[in-house]
Amino acid sequence: MALSPDQEAEIAENRAAVRTTRRAVSEGAEAHLYAVHPVLDHGFVRLVDYMGDDAAICQAARVSYGRGTKSVQNDEALVRYLMRHWHSTPFEMCEAKFHVKLPVFVARQWIRHRTANVNEYSARYSILDREFYVPARDDLAAQSSINNQGRGAALEEGEAARVLGWLKDDAARAYDHYEAMIRQDGQQGLARELARIALPTSIYTQWYWKIDLHNLFHFLRLRADAHAQYEIRVYAEAICRIVADWVPAAWAAFADYRLGGVTVSARGADVLRRRLRGEVVTEETSGMSKGEWREFEAVWGQNGKTA
Amino acid sequence: MALSPDQEAEIAENRAAVRTTRRAVSEGAEAHLYAVHPVLDHGFVRLVDYMGDDAAICQAARVSYGRGTKSVQNDEALVRYLMRHWHSTPFEMCEAKFHVKLPVFVARQWIRHRTANVNEYSARYSILDREFYVPARDDLAAQSSINNQGRGAALEEGEAARVLGWLKDDAARAYDHYEAMIRQDGQQGLARELARIALPTSIYTQWYWKIDLHNLFHFLRLRADAHAQYEIRVYAEAICRIVADWVPAAWAAFADYRLGGVTVSARGADVLRRRLRGEVVTEETSGMSKGEWREFEAVWGQNGKTA
Amino acid sequence: MALSPDQEAEIAENRAAVRTTRRAVSEGAEAHLYAVHPVLDHGFVRLVDYMGDDAAICQAARVSYGRGTKSVQNDEALVRYLMRHWHSTPFEMCEAKFHVKLPVFVARQWIRHRTANVNEYSARYSILDREFYVPARDDLAAQSSINNQGRGAALEEGEAARVLGWLKDDAARAYDHYEAMIRQDGQQGLARELARIALPTSIYTQWYWKIDLHNLFHFLRLRADAHAQYEIRVYAEAICRIVADWVPAAWAAFADYRLGGVTVSARGADVLRRRLRGEVVTEETSGMSKGEWREFEAVWGQNGKTA
Amino acid sequence: MALSPDQEAEIAENRAAVRTTRRAVSEGAEAHLYAVHPVLDHGFVRLVDYMGDDAAICQAARVSYGRGTKSVQNDEALVRYLMRHWHSTPFEMCEAKFHVKLPVFVARQWIRHRTANVNEYSARYSILDREFYVPARDDLAAQSSINNQGRGAALEEGEAARVLGWLKDDAARAYDHYEAMIRQDGQQGLARELARIALPTSIYTQWYWKIDLHNLFHFLRLRADAHAQYEIRVYAEAICRIVADWVPAAWAAFADYRLGGVTVSARGADVLRRRLRGEVVTEETSGMSKGEWREFEAVWGQNGKTA
Repeated sequence: MALSPDQEAEIAENRAAVRTTRRAVSEGAEAHLYAVHPVLDHGFVRLVDYMGDDAAICQAARVSYGRGTKSVQNDEALVRYLMRHWHSTPFEMCEAKFHVKLPVFVARQWIRHRTANVNEYSARYSILDREFYVPARDDLAAQSSINNQGRGAALEEGEAARVLGWLKDDAARAYDHYEAMIRQDGQQGLARELARIALPTSIYTQWYWKIDLHNLFHFLRLRADAHAQYEIRVYAEAICRIVADWVPAAWAAFADYRLGGVTVSARGADVLRRRLRGEVVTEETSGMSKGEWREFEAVWGQNGKTA
Repeated sequence: MALSPDQEAEIAENRAAVRTTRRAVSEGAEAHLYAVHPVLDHGFVRLVDYMGDDAAICQAARVSYGRGTKSVQNDEALVRYLMRHWHSTPFEMCEAKFHVKLPVFVARQWIRHRTANVNEYSARYSILDREFYVPARDDLAAQSSINNQGRGAALEEGEAARVLGWLKDDAARAYDHYEAMIRQDGQQGLARELARIALPTSIYTQWYWKIDLHNLFHFLRLRADAHAQYEIRVYAEAICRIVADWVPAAWAAFADYRLGGVTVSARGADVLRRRLRGEVVTEETSGMSKGEWREFEAVWGQNGKTA
Repeated sequence: MALSPDQEAEIAENRAAVRTTRRAVSEGAEAHLYAVHPVLDHGFVRLVDYMGDDAAICQAARVSYGRGTKSVQNDEALVRYLMRHWHSTPFEMCEAKFHVKLPVFVARQWIRHRTANVNEYSARYSILDREFYVPARDDLAAQSSINNQGRGAALEEGEAARVLGWLKDDAARAYDHYEAMIRQDGQQGLARELARIALPTSIYTQWYWKIDLHNLFHFLRLRADAHAQYEIRVYAEAICRIVADWVPAAWAAFADYRLGGVTVSARGADVLRRRLRGEVVTEETSGMSKGEWREFEAVWGQNGKTA
Repeated sequence: MALSPDQEAEIAENRAAVRTTRRAVSEGAEAHLYAVHPVLDHGFVRLVDYMGDDAAICQAARVSYGRGTKSVQNDEALVRYLMRHWHSTPFEMCEAKFHVKLPVFVARQWIRHRTANVNEYSARYSILDREFYVPARDDLAAQSSINNQGRGAALEEGEAARVLGWLKDDAARAYDHYEAMIRQDGQQGLARELARIALPTSIYTQWYWKIDLHNLFHFLRLRADAHAQYEIRVYAEAICRIVADWVPAAWAAFADYRLGGVTVSARGADVLRRRLRGEVVTEETSGMSKGEWREFEAVWGQNGKTA
C-alpha cells in the first residue's frame, strides 16, 4: 500500500493538528487517529473519528448527569455485567468512524452488516486506481474438503504459479482496457459507470464506515472468527487492535464473553452435565447429529481446545 | 426544572474539564456541551457528545485522506448539493448524543424514531422523582374541529382551572401512593416495576439518545413541524438551535430544502404550471380532493404563506 | 378481555373467509389466524398475517428457483445448521404480523425492539377505553433483594389488599377525569392529546406489530426469559406458542440453541474443562467475580439446573 | 436469460400449486407469483411471496379488529392521506419477497438500501455460472459532460465495437481461467472464495430480497429515477409494474406524491410565488446558485417539463 506524497502530507497534517474539547477523550484512540494500518497488499484501516470511551458506556447505563464514572474498578465491573447480560444499548453509545481501503470482493461481504453508515468512493464519478489484490503465495489454498465454504491445504508450487500468473495478467489486461475505454483523446470515451464493469472484484475500493460499538462487536465476532474468509478477517483483526486501545474495559469483556465464549445448546449442556457427573457420553448417546457432535467435540473433547 | 446541587456540580465539572484531541472539533457544539437547555416545566435537553462537523460531511462525501475541506464556500456548495439530491450517507457521518428529561407521553412519541440509540432511566431498578408535566394555562386547548388530532382554541377560564386542578391533584395522589407502595419500613414494599404502573404518563423520565445527523434531520422535520404535538415540538426546537450551531452549513441547507421546502404532488405541479401560464385553476378543475385542495391552497393560494 | 359483539363478528368473518393462493402456506399458522389469545386481564395477541414457513427458510438459504425443499429431514437439518452457525438472513425471510392489546408500561418495554414495524392506536385522534391492568393477587410481589430489578416474595395479605385498592381506585378516578375533561357537552372539551397525559401506564393500548422471524426470535429470547418482567413475559410466551405451530423446525432449533442454550465465557469454559478433567474448582480458583460465580453455579453447580 | 428445464419445471410446479388461506390475498400479486420478468440480457425479477394488500394498509392505520376496509373509495382516500402526510408505518405493514438475478455491479448499488433482508448466492460455497452482462449496442454511451456521474451521447460505431469486443473477450477469458483454477482433476483446485476474485463485476449473481412497502417505495423513488444508472433502473421499473398490480391504490398515491412529485426549496417556493404574482425572476434575482437554477428551470421553466 503506497500512499502518494500528497496523501501522506494530508494525514500528517491531521495528526499534527491538536485542538481542545470538552468531550470524553480516549487516549488509546487518540494515538491511532488518522494513522494508516496496512492490511493485505494495498489496503488499510484508519480510525478517522470516535465518540465516547469506557466511561461513556457507564454514563449512559446510569443515565448520569456528569461523566458517570464512579471508579475504574466499579466501571469495569459494570461493563462486564452489561456484556454478560446482553445489555446492548450502553455499548451503542460509543461510535467509531474508519477510512478503509479494501478489495471489492471483501467490500461485498462487509456491506452485509447493515447497521452501519457507509460512504463509498464512486466509480460512476471517479476513476479507479490500478490496484488489485493478489494473494501472497502462501495464502493460495485448495477448496476445503470438510468445510464446504473454506480453504484447505496450500496449493503446490506449479499450480500456485499458474494461478498467480492468471490473477496478475488478467487484472492488468482488464485495467489496460478500462483505461483505453474511458480515455477521451481521439475518441468519445465510455461512461465510467460502464467501463468499470469489466474490472475484477479484486480491485481496491475505499469507503468511510461508521458504526456503534455494539454493532462493531457483532461485526468483529463474525469476521474475526476462524470461519470468516481470510481476506476480511485481517481487516477485522486490525480493527480489533484499535478497539482494544480505544475502550480497553469493553474490549476485555467482549474478549471473555463473546470472542472467547462458547454457546452450548440445550443438548450440549445436557452432555456436559452428564460428563461432569462422571458419565461417559458418546456420539450415539448424545442425541446430536454427526456434524453437531464433531463441532461439539472440537470444543469440549479430549482433543478439543483444552489440549 | 431544578437540578440538585450535586447535579449542577457534576455538570460544571464536565464543562470545566478541557482536554486535547486530534478529532474534528465544532466550536459551535463545544459551547453547548453539557449545558442544560430547559424545556417545558421540568424537562431539558443537553448535548453530551458529538462527532464531526460540516467538513466531516464533505470529507466522507469525497472519501478524503485528510480533513477533506477545500474551502468554506466549496464545502457549503457541496453540502447544499448533497441535501438537494437526497444524498443521505454523508450526513450520517455526523453523530450527536443528548441527555433528555421528558414526560413519558412525549417519550412514547419520540421512541417511534427507531434509527437511534437509547438508554432510558430504569423504573424497574430505580425510584422515579416526583416531577410531572402540568401544561401552562395558555397551552390548555380544546380538541381541534378541523384537524382530528390537534388542538383548537384555548380553554376558557373555568374549564381550564378545573382541568389543571385534576391534573395536579391526581398526579400528586398517584405519587403519594407510589411512595407508600414501595417503602420498606413496616411492610415488604411492592416491586418497583409494579408500583410505577399507577403513575400517569405526565411523569418525567430521562434518557441518553444518540443519533446520526441524517436521521436527526428526519426527526426534526417531523417533530419541529406545526402538526407535531406542542410538547414534543418544543424539544425538537431546542435541538434545532443546538444543531444550527454545531453544523451551520448543513443546518442552512436543511432549513432551505426540508424545513422550509414544499413537496408538490404531480397534480399540484400541474396546477402550478397552469397558473404560471395564466390559467385560473379552482378546486373543481384541479383534480384534487377537498382536503388536498385546502392544504394546497394554504401553501400556494392568495391567503397562503405568500401573504 | 371482553370483545364487543361487533369485534367478535369482524373476527369471525375474517376467520371464515378462505381464499386461494399460490404462496407458501403454513397450516399451523392458518389455525391461529385472527384468533384471540387472551393475555393478562384485558390484553390479547392475535396473528393477523404471516409470510413463509420452514421451507421458505431453506428456499432462501439455497437461493432456489422452486419451493426449495429437498425433504423434511434435509430441511430440518439445514435449519439446525443455520441456527447453530448464527446465519440470521434465512430466518429473516419469514415475517409475522400481530394485533396486540397491552398495557402502556408493557408497550414501553416492547417498543425498545427497533427492528419491527408498529402502528399504534392514536390517543391524539381517538378516545381510549376504560381498561386498566390490575395484577392478580398472587402476582403482587415485593422488590427482590438479590436482583435489583426483579420481584421477590409475594406480598402479605394486608399489604396486597392496600395496594390493589390504590391501583383500582386511582385508575378509576383518572379515567373519570379523562372523560370529564374531553366531553364536549356544556364545555369546549380538552384536546385528547392533553387529556390522556393524566392516565396511568396501566391503561391498555393496541397496536399492529410486524417483525421478521430472526428478530422475533431475538425478542422472544429476551422477553420469554425469566429475567423479563412478568407482564411482558406472558405476551412473549403466547407468541412462542404461535411460532411453534407456524414454523416447527425453526422453533425446535431455536428452543435447543437459544432458549435452552447456555453461553459460557472464556473463563467459564476454562472452569468446565478443569472440572471435566477432575479438578475441584471453587469461586476462589475460578477467576470470576462473586456475581459471575453465583450465576455460573446456578447453571453448572450441584444445585444448578442439573438437579 | 435462459432457464434450465429443471428450473422451468420447478417454477411451473409452484405456479400450479394452489392452496387455501385465511390471509389477505391480492389477486394482482397472485398473477405475478413466481413468474419470471426478464431484465437485461440474463437477469430477472420474480415475486416469490407477499404479505398484505391495499386494505391491509388501512387495517393497520385504523388498528382494526377485522379486515379494516370500509369501502374502496374510503380506503383509497385514506391511503392518499397517509402518503401525503408522510405516514410511513401503515405502508410498512405490507411486505414483498423477490428472487432477483443481477450483475454484481448492480448488486453493489442495490445493497446500499439497508432496510431489507437479503440472502445471496454464495460464491464461497457454490460455482458461479458463465453469464456476464454485456450492454446492448445502443446502451454504450460516453461519459456525460454535464452530469459528472452519468452518460451522454451514444458511442460511435468503431468505438462501440472496440468496447464490446473487450467486454466480451475479457469476461470469457476470466471465466475460462476461473474454471481452470477450481477444477480438481489433475490438480488440487483453488478455493472458490479465491478463484472468484478474478471475475469482473459484470458477472451475474442472485439473491432473495425481502422488503416492506414503505422502504420499497423509497428504493423505487431513487432507482426508478432518471439519475439512477440505467442497469439498475430497469430492475426498478420491472418491480414498479409488479407493485402497481399488487397494491394499486398505494401505487397510485406513490406515483402522484413521490415519483411524479417535486420538492421545492424555500428559495424555490419564493421564486414560484413571485412568478405567480406576475414578477419576472431570473437566475440573478433568484438567490440560487448556477446549478440550482438550472435544475429549477428544468422543472419550472418555459422549456421545463411543462412544455
